[in-house]
Amino acid sequence: MNSVLEKIRGHLIVSCQGNKDDGNPFYRPEDMLQMVDCAVVGGGVGIRVNTPPNIELVKSKYPDLPMVGIWKVVTPGCDVYITPTMKEVDRLVELGCEIIAVDGTCRKNCEGRYAYELIGEIKKKYPDQLVMADLATLHDAEMCMAQGADIISTTLSGYTEDTKDKYAKGVDLDVIKDIRAKFPNAFINAEGRIWTIDDARNAYQYGADVITVGTAITSPFAITRRFVNAINSFNQN
Amino acid sequence: MNSVLEKIRGHLIVSCQGNKDDGNPFYRPEDMLQMVDCAVVGGGVGIRVNTPPNIELVKSKYPDLPMVGIWKVVTPGCDVYITPTMKEVDRLVELGCEIIAVDGTCRKNCEGRYAYELIGEIKKKYPDQLVMADLATLHDAEMCMAQGADIISTTLSGYTEDTKDKYAKGVDLDVIKDIRAKFPNAFINAEGRIWTIDDARNAYQYGADVITVGTAITSPFAITRRFVNAINSFNQN
Repeated sequence: MNSVLEKIRGHLIVSCQGNKDDGNPFYRPEDMLQMVDCAVVGGGVGIRVNTPPNIELVKSKYPDLPMVGIWKVVTPGCDVYITPTMKEVDRLVELGCEIIAVDGTCRKNCEGRYAYELIGEIKKKYPDQLVMADLATLHDAEMCMAQGADIISTTLSGYTEDTKDKYAKGVDLDVIKDIRAKFPNAFINAEGRIWTIDDARNAYQYGADVITVGTAITSPFAITRRFVNAINSFNQN
Repeated sequence: MNSVLEKIRGHLIVSCQGNKDDGNPFYRPEDMLQMVDCAVVGGGVGIRVNTPPNIELVKSKYPDLPMVGIWKVVTPGCDVYITPTMKEVDRLVELGCEIIAVDGTCRKNCEGRYAYELIGEIKKKYPDQLVMADLATLHDAEMCMAQGADIISTTLSGYTEDTKDKYAKGVDLDVIKDIRAKFPNAFINAEGRIWTIDDARNAYQYGADVITVGTAITSPFAITRRFVNAINSFNQN
């Protein structure tokens, strides 16, 4: 197995992201670096970081820490925004991301092609680059495996038109189980709505090789909001 | 009921603390202010902050946000460290803390008196100052109520010699229930090891008037470590 995959297998990746537009007070590159510091001190074996400025700053301090690099680019009228084209990939390769995550769904990207098609192109252009496919369904996973994806990630389950009903149900254990059943040797990253230790345990028990936790660790504002919403709902009754 | 107590009742207080000595990358006053920003954006109605420099900075930006001020001072050979003497109290009063939390256990403080005795002295010197008693047992609560504490807080359950067995069991619901049964009109703050929405719901159901959540919201490094420890333990089996 690839040495980066060996290194992360059975452990924790911490996603360190923050969007100013969401009202998140932690959004600057130096904030993201401080969150990465926390991930490292706390024992995370890898990190997920968005946009070149953040990745560059983090890489300057932690050159050998496995980095899942992404570059979210929102295009009006298009649903695909996680590293949507080769332009973003080229830059992430340049920055030395051990893993690059891209949208691996069957949705059309801003160039009018299926999002997952980018994976095959990356593997052709950069054969040694590890690619993580952020997807939502078993069908997506089938397409991405055929394209040569190195890691299948459940990141987008609950966030696509087809799977939005799953959002409220928490971690999508079914899709992990289905992908594991169909692809016994796939390297699976469980990501999305992992809030508790039980969620983490379940993700592993259903077949994940690694898990990625973001908001529940690195977004104090979103964690506060989640407690507040819950308290308001049960104190009203 | 006092207007500050009215304001926080049934809601969430966010404890924003960070200790460099623990390896926590968030420890500077500006880090604490940013955590308070998160608490505010997320809907917290009050905050708990340690040491005058942090409190002063936060108060300069949020003069009207209910502040539970503490000043931890560790004295070798003495277990009492949360706002242990009148000296610390005087400074916290000066800084305009709506609530001052002090150790309310039956342990001896660095001046050789019972920690809870400070409460009566504060109420005598500053009759309008709200005082929160950080304590561990029903017996502590009885002493603190007799001293005139405005808020009984379960902060120290699990952290004293007598209650250390409770640490691993999570939120101490029994002590909340026992204090509520004995003092139907006490204002109770549940604090300590509230990690999940279920913990929060249980604390309220057992009789809390307000809950305070710290580490689970404002310590990305400790949250990471908790996930890592759990994953390591269940992936070994």
